[in-house]
Amino acid sequence: MARRLDCRLDGDGDVEILRVAGIQHAQSGDLTFVANARYLPQLASTRASAVILGGANGSVAPGCAVLRTDDPYSAFARAVSLFAPAAAPRPGIDPHALVAADASVAPDASIGPFVTIGSRAMVGARTIIYPNVAIGPEARIGEDCVIRSQVSIRERVVVGNRVTLHDGVVVGSDGFGFARQKDGTHLKIPQIADVVIEDDVEIGANSTIDRPAVGETRVGAGTKIDNLVHVAHGVAVGRRVLLAAQVGIAGSTTVEDDVMMAGQTGVTGHVRVGKGAIIGAKSAVLQSVDDGAFVTGHPAIPHNAWRKASMLFRRLPAFRKRVDAVEQRLAEIEEKLAAWQRSRTDR
Amino acid sequence: MARRLDCRLDGDGDVEILRVAGIQHAQSGDLTFVANARYLPQLASTRASAVILGGANGSVAPGCAVLRTDDPYSAFARAVSLFAPAAAPRPGIDPHALVAADASVAPDASIGPFVTIGSRAMVGARTIIYPNVAIGPEARIGEDCVIRSQVSIRERVVVGNRVTLHDGVVVGSDGFGFARQKDGTHLKIPQIADVVIEDDVEIGANSTIDRPAVGETRVGAGTKIDNLVHVAHGVAVGRRVLLAAQVGIAGSTTVEDDVMMAGQTGVTGHVRVGKGAIIGAKSAVLQSVDDGAFVTGHPAIPHNAWRKASMLFRRLPAFRKRVDAVEQRLAEIEEKLAAWQRSRTDR
Amino acid sequence: MARRLDCRLDGDGDVEILRVAGIQHAQSGDLTFVANARYLPQLASTRASAVILGGANGSVAPGCAVLRTDDPYSAFARAVSLFAPAAAPRPGIDPHALVAADASVAPDASIGPFVTIGSRAMVGARTIIYPNVAIGPEARIGEDCVIRSQVSIRERVVVGNRVTLHDGVVVGSDGFGFARQKDGTHLKIPQIADVVIEDDVEIGANSTIDRPAVGETRVGAGTKIDNLVHVAHGVAVGRRVLLAAQVGIAGSTTVEDDVMMAGQTGVTGHVRVGKGAIIGAKSAVLQSVDDGAFVTGHPAIPHNAWRKASMLFRRLPAFRKRVDAVEQRLAEIEEKLAAWQRSRTDR
Repeated sequence: MARRLDCRLDGDGDVEILRVAGIQHAQSGDLTFVANARYLPQLASTRASAVILGGANGSVAPGCAVLRTDDPYSAFARAVSLFAPAAAPRPGIDPHALVAADASVAPDASIGPFVTIGSRAMVGARTIIYPNVAIGPEARIGEDCVIRSQVSIRERVVVGNRVTLHDGVVVGSDGFGFARQKDGTHLKIPQIADVVIEDDVEIGANSTIDRPAVGETRVGAGTKIDNLVHVAHGVAVGRRVLLAAQVGIAGSTTVEDDVMMAGQTGVTGHVRVGKGAIIGAKSAVLQSVDDGAFVTGHPAIPHNAWRKASMLFRRLPAFRKRVDAVEQRLAEIEEKLAAWQRSRTDR
Repeated sequence: MARRLDCRLDGDGDVEILRVAGIQHAQSGDLTFVANARYLPQLASTRASAVILGGANGSVAPGCAVLRTDDPYSAFARAVSLFAPAAAPRPGIDPHALVAADASVAPDASIGPFVTIGSRAMVGARTIIYPNVAIGPEARIGEDCVIRSQVSIRERVVVGNRVTLHDGVVVGSDGFGFARQKDGTHLKIPQIADVVIEDDVEIGANSTIDRPAVGETRVGAGTKIDNLVHVAHGVAVGRRVLLAAQVGIAGSTTVEDDVMMAGQTGVTGHVRVGKGAIIGAKSAVLQSVDDGAFVTGHPAIPHNAWRKASMLFRRLPAFRKRVDAVEQRLAEIEEKLAAWQRSRTDR
Repeated sequence: MARRLDCRLDGDGDVEILRVAGIQHAQSGDLTFVANARYLPQLASTRASAVILGGANGSVAPGCAVLRTDDPYSAFARAVSLFAPAAAPRPGIDPHALVAADASVAPDASIGPFVTIGSRAMVGARTIIYPNVAIGPEARIGEDCVIRSQVSIRERVVVGNRVTLHDGVVVGSDGFGFARQKDGTHLKIPQIADVVIEDDVEIGANSTIDRPAVGETRVGAGTKIDNLVHVAHGVAVGRRVLLAAQVGIAGSTTVEDDVMMAGQTGVTGHVRVGKGAIIGAKSAVLQSVDDGAFVTGHPAIPHNAWRKASMLFRRLPAFRKRVDAVEQRLAEIEEKLAAWQRSRTDR
């Protein structure tokens, strides 16, 4: 196993591993891991039979077998994969699915019951579509995708290869585009343009990706999106981007490659978030962000500036007392000086 | 086309327009538009065959035909409509839909496969219901509505005419109403009252509109709601309101006509947001807002005050240094004065 | 009725009550209630035939029958229950549902049309499953549950007794777990471990509860979760917790019993929110919270400190002017002192 996980073995290589477990729940027969230093103290009392440990913790010697590696988190990922149940539904179209006569479904794709596939839509090889999914006309879904239950893929949406859409995801719903009229009503701008989800993208449960009026909405290859995220019409999300849960990105904004956004962050419309930028949790990005910048807050400012200012925010009441006291002392000094001045003048 | 878009033509009226496109992607044969001044510089290099331009940009003369108008965004909306594909499913009840025997469905409504329509529910003329929608008993849906896939319209909900519900919307789910008991458990207050969605409302993907225990939840005519928005039990949303993505409005709050809320804003329960008020992005509205006010922040305060205070927030560390320095200088002055006073007294 | 609601009757006990209504909409024949003091003034003009009133309002004597109690909100809950329509679908498996041959469904459970129940899944006695629900293989659902339309319960998820899942809820979707590789791509960590929803839990529309790679995600008995809430992989939510709408809790965090979180709050990963803690609206909890603490803000700090600091935040511009003025006055004093000192030295 050490070889398959690309680790160096310290200790007993004959231990039998039956499961992968978190350090708190691990029992005899389990392989566990420590990638986050805050869990190191728990190593002393773990019942696990083996542990994956980072190189930086070279001096730590727990009472069980150790698999040492420079990248314990990736070794853990591979270990979990070794024990994952392989439970894909079998290929073929369930008799309770409705596939349009002119749609094209690969023979080894798996289409579950109560799925609808619209006219001229395409589903690629080995793609699995779980029950109750709705796929609109002319949508194109690539190979080796996993489309979970209750997903809606609207007309003409393009989905690449090896894409996972979790339960309840909506791709291609109308963008929020209205033109305000003189009488205060809102004229709908038809949202009829393209949505492209590139290869190796994963989108979390109940997230929504909107369609624009013109141009396209695009999610770049290798990007991972968490649950309940909103990507508005005309947004361009780059490659290998991470968007944590409940992030929202407003219309026509560009998010460059390798950006990371923490949970509940919002980005305004028509701005650019530069390559590799990091956005702290619950931030409101109200203007463009430079490549590689790390910003946080509402509005988002450089993270260190935000952190320092936040520490002082809670001390504003103490601060005010200091300014009150300073003004009081100043007034006393001024009075004293005025008195002196008068006494001098009197002299 | 200039006539149909209510524009004045400048330049070659013989150009053939095949498509509407954003200014960055426009090619020969495309009509584009500039409603946002920040995109004006791109006009010089556009390949579009024609552009819709606002009256304020009267002096701009790009190298293509120009359609001038006071309201370029609305002209753009109409132009997109001219080119929109008309792809409505055909009228009638799909044989794979389940309509209760005592439900009433207009003969020219279109009911997709795997749709359920409960007892005594009603669906009006020309309304389109896409696959996998669940409509509860006694729900009433008006004419010319579009109900997208995966929507749930619960029992007794009333939906007006020309309403669009995007994929995954839930209308009529139970409000979050519990009475805390002495033992710390939460007694459910049955949420059984009414939900009304008035005419011309549009609700974005995966948004949720809750039902109250008593009274009603109401969304007024012409209101537009974006994706992943939460409208709690007993909320009254007025007419022509705009709620951007991920907004949340807590129970029993009133949002008056023509209010606009930017994305990720939250409004507490039992307050009133006055007519025409604007709420800035990601705000927390913790008390009532006056008619026409523009507020932002957490808690929301007048927008200009918030903007100025936010600029100073990031300068709090510099501010602290100034107060430190002031105290230091004060101490020095006080010491000097004390020394003088002593020397005077000594004299 | 006074007896059934555990109230003391003041006034006419012969009034016939036909309905329960909010104080603003109540008509003759209606029972209404006042639990929130801000609605007390409306009592004078109510048309209700009876009102439930708290003991603290003993001196209030409206012009209708009064039901006095120490807990008016609970009495109201019971009153609504008395008038709630009992409209459960009838027991049995709809012929348009698809139940795996080796699944186990109690004979008095009710399974709606277009529901799929996977291999070896179990559904307990009297549980109601509404149309279009997808239940994965080996999922176990207890007795007396209500599972609304469009819900997805993924493979191996365990749901206790008397659990309500509202429309569009997803339980058991993959957690957002990836290991960043040297080339910048994200290696998926298979999310294959357990999710447990204990007894008497209610989860609001379109909320999502993720599955972890190892260990479990757990929602404790009696906990109530509002709409569009995100509970990440490996989170432990205690008993009788209240999570209001659009709350998000990041991976591996522990939320102890009796915690209350107001709407749109976010909690970072790997922290502990102590027993009985209260988190104010739209807060960002970035570190562990003590038992019984009340925190608010971004980052969350003790609520009173946040409230005071927030009041001063908006006065930062005035504050700056004060510091400007103080520096100006200091400079004048220093100049005057220097002049004096020079004149002294000159003397």
